[in-house]
Amino acid sequence: MHRYTPVAHIKSEHIPRATIQRLAVYVQVLENLKRDGTEVISSEHLARICAVNPSQIRKDLAYFGEFGVRGVGYYIEDLISAIKKSLGVDRTWNCALVGVGNLGRALLRHKECRTRGFNIVGVFDCDPFKIGEILAGQEVICSRRLVEKVKELDIEIGIITTPPERAQRAANYLVDAGIKGIVNFAPTRLSVPEEVEVEYVDFFHNFFNVAFKITLRELPNG
Amino acid sequence: MHRYTPVAHIKSEHIPRATIQRLAVYVQVLENLKRDGTEVISSEHLARICAVNPSQIRKDLAYFGEFGVRGVGYYIEDLISAIKKSLGVDRTWNCALVGVGNLGRALLRHKECRTRGFNIVGVFDCDPFKIGEILAGQEVICSRRLVEKVKELDIEIGIITTPPERAQRAANYLVDAGIKGIVNFAPTRLSVPEEVEVEYVDFFHNFFNVAFKITLRELPNG
Repeated sequence: MHRYTPVAHIKSEHIPRATIQRLAVYVQVLENLKRDGTEVISSEHLARICAVNPSQIRKDLAYFGEFGVRGVGYYIEDLISAIKKSLGVDRTWNCALVGVGNLGRALLRHKECRTRGFNIVGVFDCDPFKIGEILAGQEVICSRRLVEKVKELDIEIGIITTPPERAQRAANYLVDAGIKGIVNFAPTRLSVPEEVEVEYVDFFHNFFNVAFKITLRELPNG
Repeated sequence: MHRYTPVAHIKSEHIPRATIQRLAVYVQVLENLKRDGTEVISSEHLARICAVNPSQIRKDLAYFGEFGVRGVGYYIEDLISAIKKSLGVDRTWNCALVGVGNLGRALLRHKECRTRGFNIVGVFDCDPFKIGEILAGQEVICSRRLVEKVKELDIEIGIITTPPERAQRAANYLVDAGIKGIVNFAPTRLSVPEEVEVEYVDFFHNFFNVAFKITLRELPNG
């Protein structure tokens, strides 16, 4: 039963990046609430938990269609699936993880990956001492075998968690294997063909932001 | 010698979050260029490397003052220090890392932390098997000793890399110790007093964004 008008397709490719980012936070918060048994939430309450302005939340959700029910709030389950559908992520994506250092191991054990629809189905490294190791139930495979494995395992997204000096080589293997997108955790820029989507994970803006907010608080007129 | 009008103070506390995030990327890219010996860069070139619109870059930089020199471009070293000064991060911050699982270990070995001005000077865990272990030259200390150590080591920022179920306890120790800000890598919301700044690291928006862009490309009219 639909309680809102379903969004049939993505309305615009010009969804601001900041909106996508906030929507990803809303989905995380909503999934936690759902797990705890909450079924309905008001925009004020959702705003408070997400530390966002209520009018901002209403604006962000209006962007994708009408999800709310006047006087009731939002049905959490419907809202989650509507946001995911609008973002095109209401499905699972098979991912290859390249580089099994500490960060790669942390990601492999990160339960949220699967919950969010990103299944790491292949684990790769070029270190002969790591190849063959079993991590989170998966055997580490030589990165040279990416071409063959990407096809076999129907992988669309590559995750790079190598040291920076090996990231470009990892990207080359992934591109040669026909990957569609890369999430790069290595602190270096990659050169890839235009048809491959790359996202750079950089958590230093979070550090800068905390530092910036502390600095503001400590200004004489703060 | 100053080649531009220096920014004496932060002009507004209402710097949009998206701008801060882009500035953090510019600093990273500019620091890589500086390391490679580049001294001057045009906004068009910087825009290309950062995959941002040139007018966006000029707008972002104009936000903080006038850095460019007409017909020449930007002096990289000046630009880096001006952006950092504007963000209030042209200094070092002593940080405590709480939780030495794979992610904590990855962060401890992440050379960029120190380069960016965030020095991890104390490493904490509550696991008796980890306490006393030496990691990246530092001894793992019992989390219960945070109050004493935060004062002794002049720590202002706490980094939480515990499993989600232990993150709130870590936050409590940090708050009791008088920390000013927290960067939380654990996938859970924290409850802290209003005077403590919290930033949540969530890289799933990067995954969502890649998935979203792949989906858009594959639309019939994409």
